[in-house]
Formats: sequence, C-alpha cells, structure tokens
Amino acid sequence: MDSLLADGLGRIASDIDTAFDQLLPLPEDPRKRLVEAMRYAAIGGGKRLRPLLLTATAEMYGVDRDAALRAGVAIESIHVYSLIHDDLPCMDDDELRHGKPTIHKAYDEATAVLAGDALHAFAFEVLSDVATSGDPFTRIELVATLAGASGFQGMAGGQMMDIVAETSTFDLQTITRLQQLKTGALLGASVEMGAILGKVPPEGRTHLRGYARDIGLAFQIADDLIDHEGDEKAAGKALRKDAEAGKETFVSLLGPDRARAQARMLVDQAVAQLASHGVEADLLRALARYIVERDH
Amino acid sequence: MDSLLADGLGRIASDIDTAFDQLLPLPEDPRKRLVEAMRYAAIGGGKRLRPLLLTATAEMYGVDRDAALRAGVAIESIHVYSLIHDDLPCMDDDELRHGKPTIHKAYDEATAVLAGDALHAFAFEVLSDVATSGDPFTRIELVATLAGASGFQGMAGGQMMDIVAETSTFDLQTITRLQQLKTGALLGASVEMGAILGKVPPEGRTHLRGYARDIGLAFQIADDLIDHEGDEKAAGKALRKDAEAGKETFVSLLGPDRARAQARMLVDQAVAQLASHGVEADLLRALARYIVERDH
Repeated sequence: MDSLLADGLGRIASDIDTAFDQLLPLPEDPRKRLVEAMRYAAIGGGKRLRPLLLTATAEMYGVDRDAALRAGVAIESIHVYSLIHDDLPCMDDDELRHGKPTIHKAYDEATAVLAGDALHAFAFEVLSDVATSGDPFTRIELVATLAGASGFQGMAGGQMMDIVAETSTFDLQTITRLQQLKTGALLGASVEMGAILGKVPPEGRTHLRGYARDIGLAFQIADDLIDHEGDEKAAGKALRKDAEAGKETFVSLLGPDRARAQARMLVDQAVAQLASHGVEADLLRALARYIVERDH
Repeated sequence: MDSLLADGLGRIASDIDTAFDQLLPLPEDPRKRLVEAMRYAAIGGGKRLRPLLLTATAEMYGVDRDAALRAGVAIESIHVYSLIHDDLPCMDDDELRHGKPTIHKAYDEATAVLAGDALHAFAFEVLSDVATSGDPFTRIELVATLAGASGFQGMAGGQMMDIVAETSTFDLQTITRLQQLKTGALLGASVEMGAILGKVPPEGRTHLRGYARDIGLAFQIADDLIDHEGDEKAAGKALRKDAEAGKETFVSLLGPDRARAQARMLVDQAVAQLASHGVEADLLRALARYIVERDH
C-alpha cells in the first residue's frame, strides 16, 4: 500500500472516531442505552471508505476538513445503520461485524433496530446543521444526495433486490444493477458530496460520477472474490454466505479469473476518469487500486 | 365532531393517500416488492393527525397546499416507518395495525425492516426536493426539524425509554419526558414545519410549540385511556398491552379520572396558546379537542 493511502486510511479512521465521539455524547437518562448502542456500532470499526472518498474529493476542491468530516460522519452513519439492520436475524443473521459481536448480539434486537433508526436520522441532523456548511443550498444538496442514495431508489432498493435474489436467478445485468444500488449508490454519494461541498456544479461532476460508478462495481467484485476465497479472520465476518444462500454473484457468473480481470479493468477505467486532475487526485487513484487489492 | 374538523380529517386522509400514490409509483424491477410494502403501510390507514396539524398550521400563514402536503407526506413517512418497526416481533410484536395485518405479517420481517428504512429516507428525499419549497433555507430548516424530532433526541430516544420502562419503574416526570420524546416530538415538528413553510421566524413560533407540547401530552394520555378502557375493534389494534407489560402509564400513575381531567386541562391550555389568532386557527382548536375525545 502506498504511504499516501496508508496515511489517508489511518487519518480518516482516527478523525471519524473522534467526530462520532464528540457528536454523540452519552445522555444521563434512560436514552443512554440507545446512544451507547449507536456508539458501539459507529466507533472503532470499518475501513471508513465512504468518508475517505468524501474527504479526498472535498480536499481536491479546497474544502475545510472539519466540514468534510461532518459530511463523512453523515454518510458513515447511513452505512453503519444499514449494516446493523442487515445483520439482524430476519436479514443476514450475522453474529460478527468488524471482529466483534453484532449489535443485536451485544445488546438485543429491539435496541439494534432502534440504534439503526437513530443513526439514520442522525445523518440528516448532522448534514442540516449550519456547522456542515454556512450555505443552505449546499446543505440541502447534501441531504438530497444522501437521501436519494439511501432509499428505495438507492441502497434500500438494492437490499430488496438482494433478498429477491435468494429465490430468483438474476443475470449479469440484473446483478450489476443490484450492486449499483446496494453498494454503488452510497459510494457514488460519497464522491458527489465531496464535490458539492467544493461547490462543483452538477455538470462538473460527470467524471467523478463515472469514477464512483467504476470503483463501486470493482468494490463489489472484490467483495464477491473475498466471499469466495477470502480468509474469515482477515475479513472479520462470516464468509461463503452467497454460495450457501444459492445467490448469483459476479464470481459465480463470470468465474474468479474473469471477475478479477473485470475488477482490474474497472479500476483502470476509474483512474482514467481522473485524467483532468493532477497530483491532487492521487489519493482517489490510490483508493481505486486499493479497492481491488484489499483482503477484507 | 364539528364540520370544520370532519372536513379537515376527510380532506387530509384523501390528499395524503393521493400524494403517496403519486410519489411512490411501482418500479418494474425486483424493487417492486419494496415499494409495494411501502405503499401497503403508507396508503389508506391512520388518522393523518401529523399532516393535518402541519397543513392546518401552514394554512394559517397562507402556504400553498401542495407544498404543505409534501411536508405532510414527509412527516407521515416518519410516523409510518416508526409504526412498522414498532410492530416487529422484536419490538411490540403486533399483528394488526389500522385493522389490517402488520407489514411483517403481510410480507415478512426483512421486508418490514427495509420498507421502514426506505420510508425514513423517503421523508428526506421529499423534503429536500425543490417542489417542497423554492427556498433552500426553508427546505433545510424542514429537514433539520424533522431529523431532530425523529432521532435519539426525539422519537427514537422516547422509544428506547419505552423499552427501558418495561424493566424499570418510572415516575410521572420520567413518563412525561418519555412521551414528550416518543410522541410529542413528532407532533411538535408537525406544527413547527407548518410555521417554517409559512416563513414564521423561530421567535414567532413559541406559542405554537406550547400548543404542540400540550396537545402532545393530551394525545398520549388519551392513548393510555384508550389502551386502558377502549374498544379493540374501534382502535383497530390490540389493547391492554401496557398493563400486560407491567408498564407505568399516565393512567396507572394518576388513575383514569385524574388522567382524563389532566388531558382536558392540557387541551384548554393548548387552545389558550392560540389566543393571538382569529378564526384561521379554528381547525387547530378543533383538533386539540378531538385529540382527547376520540375513541381510537
């Protein structure tokens, strides 16, 4: 891993933990259990890829890091809430996440549902606060982008397709659409929100959207490869679940070799989208490469 | 019921159903099941008290009805998502809502979790759209108000207190706080959002907040009375659940007679908050009275 990326990953992990810690103080009343559960899920785990994409994009356009970190906390809150709900017994029924018990195991199911819901609302509380941007138009654009990427037209829609996939046979096109919604929408929103903070108008974001779309698919293919042949200890979660559930994936449809080649092609394509940028886009380039090379 | 209120309730029920129907068209792909479930939960049920509070307040300040209805759809989406998640087996485990099977019964638990999540995001999609208000500051104020009222500082915090109440003994002050968060926060946001659309500055909303706080508590006392002595058929849901769960309520702490007197006092106080308004506040006055007189 190059040092620019290693520094970026280390710095974002520490900064996002600090931000969650500051923004979610424990209340001294019976809501304490809820905020504890939110903190348990939100602090100290995960690669923080979405906040890193967001802050790296924002930095290209000279955005103040504190503002970008707040938007990063918001998108990570959505990601974390989706993991909490995904891990529930009625969904994927997972007992381990980032190497520690999932929240419904550490607390209980009701607390897991509520902590997910509260993190979902928290994302929009953080974005709509004037500390994220003094410009109301910027704030509302952030909200619109994140809400659109989270709901039935984005992540939640992709999760439903994923459930339907257990009892249907999807072709490559439908699997691609599923993944673009389930994972790609939020990765795309990360880059887009960085550009929104940088006051880049929508027509100036086309190449960034292309970059995000390509790394989103590459990310999912890499995930499928890890699920197919990865190490459970490195991944910090149960693997081989797709095959057990009889779900089609990029790996089952393409085979591991073609899947790997496809992921690499997508990363090259993503990097090519950044051709108009100089060294200021190096972190985004390194991130694209990391996405297919990671083992967890 | 006076005719102003009867008209208001009939009109809002029809308008909110129409708005959900238009804003949530069924997609022709595997996300269809998700949007069907969202529509099942959102259309054709409930008294639409929150949208009625919102539109009645907005109308006092001359707000365009279509804009107010969009904000009404947003707040109702939050309310509906909270009911879906509340009804889950790991929460209240209810089988009936508005006289029809709850969504995890009609579909399944995973779909219920996701439909709730998607309605949650949908609320912020609707609010952040330019069709709700041409003014970005108004839109972001709506988002901030709704997100704050929904999260750990509002509804979700109250729901957690409600869970803790099953194993703790709360005094009247803590029960009051619980209800102010669990139900009051969203009722307060309804009135506040109507005033935001009407461009009423925060300092001009104090009396409206007082009105909302009073009717919020009166509403909950009325709910406790219905749970204690109401008719399950009229209520369209299972009753006597608080006593079974061993939870303290206004009725268990005050007794039914004092609870009823307290609710009536709160309604008088709420109506008094509107003294600076003329006939344009008659619907809000009628609504306050209805809240304690309803049987479901």
